[in-house]
Amino acid sequence: MTDQTQIAYFTEEASAETVNARVSDDADARLKTVMESLVKHLHAFVKDVELTQDEWGVAIDFLTRTGQICGGNRQEFILLSDVLGVSMLVDAINNRRPSGATENTVLGPFHVDGVPDYEMGANITKAGGRETCRFFGTVTDLDGHPVAGARIDVWSDSEDGFYDVQQPDVQPRHNNRGVFTTGADGKYWFDGIKPVSYPIPDDGPVGQMLGHLGRHPYRPAHMHFIVSAEGFDPVTTHTFVAGDDYLTSDAVFGVKQSLIATFDPVEGGETRWQSRYDFVLQRS
Amino acid sequence: MTDQTQIAYFTEEASAETVNARVSDDADARLKTVMESLVKHLHAFVKDVELTQDEWGVAIDFLTRTGQICGGNRQEFILLSDVLGVSMLVDAINNRRPSGATENTVLGPFHVDGVPDYEMGANITKAGGRETCRFFGTVTDLDGHPVAGARIDVWSDSEDGFYDVQQPDVQPRHNNRGVFTTGADGKYWFDGIKPVSYPIPDDGPVGQMLGHLGRHPYRPAHMHFIVSAEGFDPVTTHTFVAGDDYLTSDAVFGVKQSLIATFDPVEGGETRWQSRYDFVLQRS
Repeated sequence: MTDQTQIAYFTEEASAETVNARVSDDADARLKTVMESLVKHLHAFVKDVELTQDEWGVAIDFLTRTGQICGGNRQEFILLSDVLGVSMLVDAINNRRPSGATENTVLGPFHVDGVPDYEMGANITKAGGRETCRFFGTVTDLDGHPVAGARIDVWSDSEDGFYDVQQPDVQPRHNNRGVFTTGADGKYWFDGIKPVSYPIPDDGPVGQMLGHLGRHPYRPAHMHFIVSAEGFDPVTTHTFVAGDDYLTSDAVFGVKQSLIATFDPVEGGETRWQSRYDFVLQRS
Repeated sequence: MTDQTQIAYFTEEASAETVNARVSDDADARLKTVMESLVKHLHAFVKDVELTQDEWGVAIDFLTRTGQICGGNRQEFILLSDVLGVSMLVDAINNRRPSGATENTVLGPFHVDGVPDYEMGANITKAGGRETCRFFGTVTDLDGHPVAGARIDVWSDSEDGFYDVQQPDVQPRHNNRGVFTTGADGKYWFDGIKPVSYPIPDDGPVGQMLGHLGRHPYRPAHMHFIVSAEGFDPVTTHTFVAGDDYLTSDAVFGVKQSLIATFDPVEGGETRWQSRYDFVLQRS
């Protein structure tokens, strides 16, 4: 059997090469690169585990149910990407930064546009909360110089573990959200609540998969930040509450070690907790 | 950074290891093996091509649309598996046979149970067809001894390229389908039509993907066979019409070189064509 024949007709050995040989030379070069790599790895996976017909059937059924449950606010394929670490990997690859610059993590599904701009120091919690917290720090460049005019877009869940958009009938609009802008000293400070851990939606195919893998659906408590400034690469990230039970088992793998922030109790202050985190931006 | 930290928190380098470290030791051992390999290859793919956020978004949208178009008789994820060569690869891995035994190919979506048993020599074409064809041959074991009592389940498309189940209002039920049983000589023969090539459904996401890859949706003309006998491994396969335009570009990669059958014109016979194919079964 010649090499040409091996590619012309299907063989187990040359299966991926046969599939990839069919792509037209006129196809978009990048699409071709991506699909060839996908086919190569997909076939290698099937060969490595010698996937059975029944297992293939389970996979087809799983993917179908994952697609069919999507709709409205539910995007189960993004959730699947999240729990397999793919969303974080894509984020990491596309946001590589020099040592010392604040690291990215995933945006998540709960960011909204059009949130009010507040004066520095404002309280973003509109519906109360016992575990009040002051968030503060400085935005600098890699040399430690303060960044003036940095826009800080923040959002977190409520003390019950829900974002305002998940409970439009329960929480006031824009509860635990706000936008702040730094002055010449690069400093920021605002009040909110100490975030709490919460489960990702686990009543669909992805939750069933986590169950079979013996994985829990929880994310460790975190405050979301997007920090952007003219002339700098924007940073989309969270700060995670040090000591949270789920720091080393985030269902979506969002935790990078550098993003764990201390939350210190405050005696006799305006808030019960305070959390300092300094952001370091890279010039673009 | 220690190895333990690399697995506890997300890093681009150790992304797959981090995901796989989360699977419980109590999870089903086979599921664990399959998922670990899947995650390893999926992350390697994303890293190899350095997938962009936009490309990831295209993939999420594609998978979602593929799931949402499924329903009724349409299974777009199986079609996706087919056009990526995965269905054939799974079939090949699960049906390895010694040299000389008839090779498998995919079952396809058009097999039905409950088809009539015919006397050897019957005509399975109920709706006519110009390019009539006699199919014949012998079923033997690997030593060349005839296999008596072999069940031969056959089905093909019509001259218009559709199976009966695709056109319940146009074709008679069980048109171009039949079941035959060999006698002591292991021989089979029946009449039908010379099959024609036809496109797989290409009006959905999978068809769009084929379009972008510059691939056509056609399958080369083929007759389906399931040959089974007590004490032997059943063979699910097709014979392909030699000379078909799509033999080396089957949209679902079903063609193995050993399955190409000659279709010879017949002068003054009962049928216009004849096609001989001998089946060789492996003892189970």
